[in-house]
Amino acid sequence: MAVTGTRRAGSASPRTANLAAVLRALRTGPLSRTQLAARCGIAKSAVPGLLTELAERGLVRPAGVLPGNGRPSRLVELHGEDAYALALGIEADRLSALVTDLSGRVLAERTEAVDVAALGLPAGMDELARLAQAVLPGPPVGVAISVPGLVDSAAAVLRFAPALRWRDAEIAGLMAARLAVPAAAIAVDNDANLGALAESVAGTGTELFYLGGGTAVGGGFVSGGTILRGARGFAGEVGHIAVDPSGERCTCGRTGCLETKANLAAVLRAAAAPGDPLHDPSAGVEGRVALLKDRIRRGDQRTATAVHELGVALGIALSTVVDVLDPDVVVLGGYFAELGEWLVEPVRVELAARPLGQARVVASGLGLRAPLRGAAHLAAERLFANPTLAEEATV
Amino acid sequence: MAVTGTRRAGSASPRTANLAAVLRALRTGPLSRTQLAARCGIAKSAVPGLLTELAERGLVRPAGVLPGNGRPSRLVELHGEDAYALALGIEADRLSALVTDLSGRVLAERTEAVDVAALGLPAGMDELARLAQAVLPGPPVGVAISVPGLVDSAAAVLRFAPALRWRDAEIAGLMAARLAVPAAAIAVDNDANLGALAESVAGTGTELFYLGGGTAVGGGFVSGGTILRGARGFAGEVGHIAVDPSGERCTCGRTGCLETKANLAAVLRAAAAPGDPLHDPSAGVEGRVALLKDRIRRGDQRTATAVHELGVALGIALSTVVDVLDPDVVVLGGYFAELGEWLVEPVRVELAARPLGQARVVASGLGLRAPLRGAAHLAAERLFANPTLAEEATV
Repeated sequence: MAVTGTRRAGSASPRTANLAAVLRALRTGPLSRTQLAARCGIAKSAVPGLLTELAERGLVRPAGVLPGNGRPSRLVELHGEDAYALALGIEADRLSALVTDLSGRVLAERTEAVDVAALGLPAGMDELARLAQAVLPGPPVGVAISVPGLVDSAAAVLRFAPALRWRDAEIAGLMAARLAVPAAAIAVDNDANLGALAESVAGTGTELFYLGGGTAVGGGFVSGGTILRGARGFAGEVGHIAVDPSGERCTCGRTGCLETKANLAAVLRAAAAPGDPLHDPSAGVEGRVALLKDRIRRGDQRTATAVHELGVALGIALSTVVDVLDPDVVVLGGYFAELGEWLVEPVRVELAARPLGQARVVASGLGLRAPLRGAAHLAAERLFANPTLAEEATV
Repeated sequence: MAVTGTRRAGSASPRTANLAAVLRALRTGPLSRTQLAARCGIAKSAVPGLLTELAERGLVRPAGVLPGNGRPSRLVELHGEDAYALALGIEADRLSALVTDLSGRVLAERTEAVDVAALGLPAGMDELARLAQAVLPGPPVGVAISVPGLVDSAAAVLRFAPALRWRDAEIAGLMAARLAVPAAAIAVDNDANLGALAESVAGTGTELFYLGGGTAVGGGFVSGGTILRGARGFAGEVGHIAVDPSGERCTCGRTGCLETKANLAAVLRAAAAPGDPLHDPSAGVEGRVALLKDRIRRGDQRTATAVHELGVALGIALSTVVDVLDPDVVVLGGYFAELGEWLVEPVRVELAARPLGQARVVASGLGLRAPLRGAAHLAAERLFANPTLAEEATV
């Protein structure tokens, strides 16, 4: 289930590969040098040097002695509690930071309401770096940043984020300068890819499609623990699947794309007349979705119909996705997760109407936090794949 | 680029894994025992036993001596010319068999016109086994069978083939009994998956989507050399993507599915009035497609329009596929390949109209033979992944 960024894949030296093998072997518990050599398929004479290097990086430590006949074996264990994985999230209306240790335990989390598009790229990255510094107990061993747009993950560049109006933003480089971390230690990925990864790690499914709703709609697919990125890193984009031949004109020039029905503003327009408090952006995504839920529970028919029609549109698009990818589970994420109570059923009905493979449909248990959780997992996993990624930062 | 069936994955013993590692290492040329130990990461003392076992299976042989200072090293090489990979193909109107050696060189190929659906499953498998025996120079080390339908490749069962009217057909078991080969040595896969694999091996692309046209329409996706199968083995099915809201009713109950526009019978109906020789099934797929091409070249406007509209329908469906999978190349296979001269351009135009990632569009250079070529590759690769698969057969 190890998942890593594609950047620098294959460029690791044999020594780095051995460091990584030792670090991964220790995830299951303390081991002796002899056990490590056997487990990792490396010469026993090479183990002490590798352990010294990992100890200098603060990643392993002594763990007592293995009792037995003859000479006792000294054990070594993972020292993960003081190694920090940093996850950062950029959304149109907020910035988030999450710190975990190497076991995935959350050490700190903070979110700030920020109009990121208004701030612009350099000031937005300044603000995000300030947030990161505020929650970090020490230098991070790995960083991953979730962004709402098309990412060239090999180059760690955000190609286009409509909600932020950012194009070709070198997110990793900008954050590296602000955090004094090497750019190689910073992964950048699409929010829906990371949401899919988080749900996969949580055990929701093995061939898992995640559909995230927000100011835009995005999808991500994880197959056997690995994010499917495609040739350019754009896989999983479902916003322009046609769901309503008689629908609205889309920004792409076609008619009735999922995007026109499923972005939050479109649903709010369907649910309430202009001037209604539902349209007040100062309430944020969560505030407005809470209001939607409240109105459905009070029996507001217009809101209930708008959300039901959203579910039908998602179901039509997802039935195509299910035909192409054959997932075992489809996860409704982002604000769709908050409305799961009313969306899961119409999606299920649409999928059941198809002749082929059907998938389970669930609302994300991680809700709006799924992408940030996925980013924390990615940051830690990249260290286990290459323990030298952040070396300048930890010196 | 090694691709193997999912069946029995992970169940190989350490000895089998070492046999496979040695066999794969020899693909690049002759090696000494010392070189093999280093290349495969196994103890030098274990190499002679592994080589003896591979030699007994007829897979390796001595290859002279490596000159040098001190004691000369004896070399060993792959003995692939007498190890036969058997590919079998089942289509509605024909059965095919292809034998290659382990380097992929074609040793024999034969195709028979057969009304497979009329024959039924047991007699169809009898006929296919007869064809296989007629072309095989000796017992095969691996077998792969291409079928036009939904395959549970883990169980090697054909779940549903509409064109054959076969359901839950245990293809591997039926063929194992007829060829006296263990069922474990027989892989069964969807024809479009195998077409995609063949094109990937041929170097057409690395994230490659293959769309095959025949009595039905099927797709397959190969990412980094591996077939994407999905949870049930049904990934790549695109026949029910909506391409024409005002189109025909589909067998699935919806309207305007790709299937209704792109199966060969539908295109022939659009191209010619009832009673026209184009509709004569005795001409086979190739004969009728040759007639279509001939008519377009002679300036028959109705045929040209029918084929152009097919291209537009393929382009609409493929633009959704491109959004979801982000391939670097889309390959038109099966009878679409034969019509590539008129189909590639309308597909390109549809893809270019989309806001996101675009892919190259090409007609399959392997044409109708792509699935059988993919099956031959799969049969050989499964041996390199597990040299003991066919052991009962080679004894």
